Amino acid sequence: MSVLVVGSLALDSIETPFGAVDNTIGGSAVYVAVASSYFTNPIRLVGVVGGDFPPEGIAFLERRNVDLEGLQIVRDGKTFRWAGKYQYDLNARDTLSTELNVFESFDPKIPEKYRKSRYICLGNIDPVLQLKVLDQVENPRVVICDTMNYWIERKGKELRQTLERINVLILNDSEARLLSREPNLIKSGRVIRGMGPTVVIIKKGEHGALLLTEQLVFSAPAYPMESIFDPTGAGDAFAGGFAGWLARTDDLHEENLKKAVIYGSTLASFCVEKFGVEGLADLTYLQIQDRFRQFRELSRFEED
Amino acid sequence: MSVLVVGSLALDSIETPFGAVDNTIGGSAVYVAVASSYFTNPIRLVGVVGGDFPPEGIAFLERRNVDLEGLQIVRDGKTFRWAGKYQYDLNARDTLSTELNVFESFDPKIPEKYRKSRYICLGNIDPVLQLKVLDQVENPRVVICDTMNYWIERKGKELRQTLERINVLILNDSEARLLSREPNLIKSGRVIRGMGPTVVIIKKGEHGALLLTEQLVFSAPAYPMESIFDPTGAGDAFAGGFAGWLARTDDLHEENLKKAVIYGSTLASFCVEKFGVEGLADLTYLQIQDRFRQFRELSRFEED
Repeated sequence: MSVLVVGSLALDSIETPFGAVDNTIGGSAVYVAVASSYFTNPIRLVGVVGGDFPPEGIAFLERRNVDLEGLQIVRDGKTFRWAGKYQYDLNARDTLSTELNVFESFDPKIPEKYRKSRYICLGNIDPVLQLKVLDQVENPRVVICDTMNYWIERKGKELRQTLERINVLILNDSEARLLSREPNLIKSGRVIRGMGPTVVIIKKGEHGALLLTEQLVFSAPAYPMESIFDPTGAGDAFAGGFAGWLARTDDLHEENLKKAVIYGSTLASFCVEKFGVEGLADLTYLQIQDRFRQFRELSRFEED
Repeated sequence: MSVLVVGSLALDSIETPFGAVDNTIGGSAVYVAVASSYFTNPIRLVGVVGGDFPPEGIAFLERRNVDLEGLQIVRDGKTFRWAGKYQYDLNARDTLSTELNVFESFDPKIPEKYRKSRYICLGNIDPVLQLKVLDQVENPRVVICDTMNYWIERKGKELRQTLERINVLILNDSEARLLSREPNLIKSGRVIRGMGPTVVIIKKGEHGALLLTEQLVFSAPAYPMESIFDPTGAGDAFAGGFAGWLARTDDLHEENLKKAVIYGSTLASFCVEKFGVEGLADLTYLQIQDRFRQFRELSRFEED
């Protein structure tokens, strides 16, 4: 099964306590596409870049079997740029600058051959754009959607329209509390499921993730990282791993949703081990399976 | 195997968003003793109360098979009193008043027949008192110790002496960071193990707990509570459940340490469902095992 990924492509400048990189390729669509590419292919990408997007970036995506027919390249425009700096504990980050550039007028156009995609992953972008994507696709099996506090606060009404049309919402704990106005995460998940998605995944950073459905509460552990090199893209890598596994297996039973959450966590854990997308650049499927098993060891205990 | 429990006995006045109780029996030794009593007996308690400690409190402990030979009763003194109020989200609490009363001059005396106890659980009290206990016991197999930020900040030197003589330290995430001066919890556990205990358990409230040994990182989930009635004593109930299970099985292998953490989490989850010790008052072993299984369901996923 292919996955249609829609989101941002960017040139990121990142500073962490461990170093800095300038103008490295990033953006939600890049992380989601690359992470999901380890599970299924082709990955179909819809996004926009300027003429300054490096040819190596394009080559990297092509090497990962990402179909770029849906990538708009505005030759005389500049790519979206983001610069950020992480604090010592890597939980807080300051955005130093944001230049939307060609992303400001991004109008997602879904190529004809993408429209019947069964799995759709809507990266963390304006819910108005997410809705435009949903208007162009035909009867997808699963729509997975990421969002953030920025959109919850500024485009609440549009986000609620998106939520009515998706199956899986992925967001972090503070975003879940903000969206649901409910501090208890279990209740928060129920409130959000009432807004549309039948599956809600609440990411809790160093504390793992919760998968919440009508019947199920599943608590996924976090991989015990001793040093997180660069948290950028971890949430998108999670979404990509989750979506990629579901598309690979095309199985929506709860046991398989749990596995998808662990594969999402696996890809996120690789992502933060290096700068930018480098952590996702050269994985083998064996490495991914090995870490999946480590996740299992981490939380497994015997019956009594 | 019996467990020797040393800690405070108190009369607590607790206010939460769900109600209030006045002068209900509490204190670390009470919660630890009652929680561990579901797994093994007798539980041997060392502590002090005043003449105002209610006979029903004594009767309750006796009903739970708690041996009170080590309980000092100061007839003309008053029991330690604590009053606290929890905020809306139950994570923050304000201490409204503390009257140490007879606890101020508490000098733990370990009765002769308690001195060969193989399992010892040192409740969250002044590390000077914890050391006095350790000076009076003979070659215990396992010493489990609880502490808190108050002692880390005020009795750091004495606490370090205690740590050199214990096997298992139980503390929460902010306390682990404070004691180790290390924000990463995995590294923090290693730093604390360097201070003495071979096993460190870091409680993370709604995010579960980490069990850290030289070889092992085990991530225990939190029970998905929709409404926490009263968090008082949850940490002590955890320590009691953990100690009780270990004493019952007398097995220190890692697989059994993991189970002990889940039994600790189980008792803590019952504790917070009602006010004060009420949540621990009338459990059956079947209920406990049933919740243990729920913990397993919560975090179990299939191999791939």
